[in-house]
Amino acid sequence: MIRASASAPASIGNVAVGFDVLGQAFDAARDRVIAVREEQPGVRLGEVSGLVQSLPDCPRTNTALAAAEAVLAAAGNPFGARLSIDKGVPMAAGMGGSAASAVAAAAAVNALLPEPFAIADLLPFALEGERVASDPPHWDNVMASLLGGLVLAASEKPPLVQRLPVPEGVVAVLLHPSIKTETKAARALLRAEVPMALVVQHSRRIAAFAAGCAIGDLGLIRAGLEDVLVEPQRAHLLAPFGKVKKAAMEAGALGCSFSGSGPSVFAWALEKDADKVEGAMSWAFVEAGLAARAYRAPVLSEGVRVEKVSETV
Amino acid sequence: MIRASASAPASIGNVAVGFDVLGQAFDAARDRVIAVREEQPGVRLGEVSGLVQSLPDCPRTNTALAAAEAVLAAAGNPFGARLSIDKGVPMAAGMGGSAASAVAAAAAVNALLPEPFAIADLLPFALEGERVASDPPHWDNVMASLLGGLVLAASEKPPLVQRLPVPEGVVAVLLHPSIKTETKAARALLRAEVPMALVVQHSRRIAAFAAGCAIGDLGLIRAGLEDVLVEPQRAHLLAPFGKVKKAAMEAGALGCSFSGSGPSVFAWALEKDADKVEGAMSWAFVEAGLAARAYRAPVLSEGVRVEKVSETV
Repeated sequence: MIRASASAPASIGNVAVGFDVLGQAFDAARDRVIAVREEQPGVRLGEVSGLVQSLPDCPRTNTALAAAEAVLAAAGNPFGARLSIDKGVPMAAGMGGSAASAVAAAAAVNALLPEPFAIADLLPFALEGERVASDPPHWDNVMASLLGGLVLAASEKPPLVQRLPVPEGVVAVLLHPSIKTETKAARALLRAEVPMALVVQHSRRIAAFAAGCAIGDLGLIRAGLEDVLVEPQRAHLLAPFGKVKKAAMEAGALGCSFSGSGPSVFAWALEKDADKVEGAMSWAFVEAGLAARAYRAPVLSEGVRVEKVSETV
Repeated sequence: MIRASASAPASIGNVAVGFDVLGQAFDAARDRVIAVREEQPGVRLGEVSGLVQSLPDCPRTNTALAAAEAVLAAAGNPFGARLSIDKGVPMAAGMGGSAASAVAAAAAVNALLPEPFAIADLLPFALEGERVASDPPHWDNVMASLLGGLVLAASEKPPLVQRLPVPEGVVAVLLHPSIKTETKAARALLRAEVPMALVVQHSRRIAAFAAGCAIGDLGLIRAGLEDVLVEPQRAHLLAPFGKVKKAAMEAGALGCSFSGSGPSVFAWALEKDADKVEGAMSWAFVEAGLAARAYRAPVLSEGVRVEKVSETV
């Protein structure tokens, strides 16, 4: 039996100021996929474990199967595969769960190939997986989960995806409250047009943030890590959001916003302030009567990891 | 007689992708102001030389006098001043001429004070000068002419203005055609709202450009140095613009757009390509029957320079 295993981290879409432009890997939870090579063409679901007990056994509704199918198709379908999925990233949390499964599946199946693709070249296949969750697929979670760290989609056509340097000693704290939001619904309520004055405000921030990360300037990061574009239109989806954000900022966070389209809320903080920031955010959720689980990982988080390729006779 | 002299460079507003956010000093032309201390309070115009023979002698209509007046007022009006102005930066060219005069005047008068302000702290006074030309005043030309290099207005409230690193061996080439545009008119035709998809495209570019400059990555700079936000709405103001830009890009420019609101057109290019880029742009203007004067300066251009403070009995 020829098999390969890969895991991919959760991710934070948008990173506050980078709507549809930035994503960061968040290695506080990972999805793991074990791919077993089979003679029968096509992809099938094997065991499912972790946070869920079942997943659809169809590439049209399962991001992992869809991504694996895309990899095999690009390689000329030399064989089929059965995928076992261990879900460590919560679903519908705004933590990039569907992207993590797609990335891990693409990497696991890729490792079965006699001439595998380079990891960075798996992006279009993982995007085919993400398309199951959201069409057209959004790059932010997928590229971050694949490449690790803080990733910029500088251009979609032609594709130019670039890891940015990140400041040292900065962590992301994330609180996942026990409610669900739908990405599609959260996107649907965004207005189609943006006032020019707001575009300028947004531009100042994303330029400050990108430059601040690149040169390690916390003042620029603080000035930039704020979403004036989308967050004000979504804040009402999570009643205690305003209080959670205020608590994070007063506790010394560098910035705080929704992770992707929520409901999870994340903050960047210096390592030394992270306990205080996490405590303040947790307490704000408690006061609102909402249970929320805390996660934490360095801003410089590892991306996909191919863990072993083994051949058992 | 106590007098001080200061000069300030031309500047390129917006730097293509940074509408109302970025500016760069352009040390291919400078305005010089000589300030003479006088007992009589208030500011007055002395000699005018260079590209113009006369300027209004009133702080309400002369950016240099207005900036000087603001500096003296902030210092408690300890004396008055007479300003001689040598205009080296063309007016109504989109080369930051009004900002250069305001910055040079503020710095010259400042040098007369017993306890002068720090150069960076002259920004609000120079902006009071720029207000004469455009109210509310735009920061891009003023901050670049003052501080030099490539400057980001990360935040207006509270003010956070930051010089960004620039890639080595890159120059700006600028062609000033013999027609005039009015900043006010060029701004008036901009639409009030921007489609969200375009905001995302713009965000990708400004993030790529800021990060690319900070880490010296020419691929990111190339991907980012493009104005999808404002340029398409202004291109028709200069008939040959499309051909000039195409010529610049085909000659190897990293990017090409209007300088500020035009009519001047600038390009960034590697030093080794600059002759070719300038030649191609010039030729495109010639073919369109428009005379255009070429200027060139390193992207890393010096800002304001206080040249001497002398006391003659």
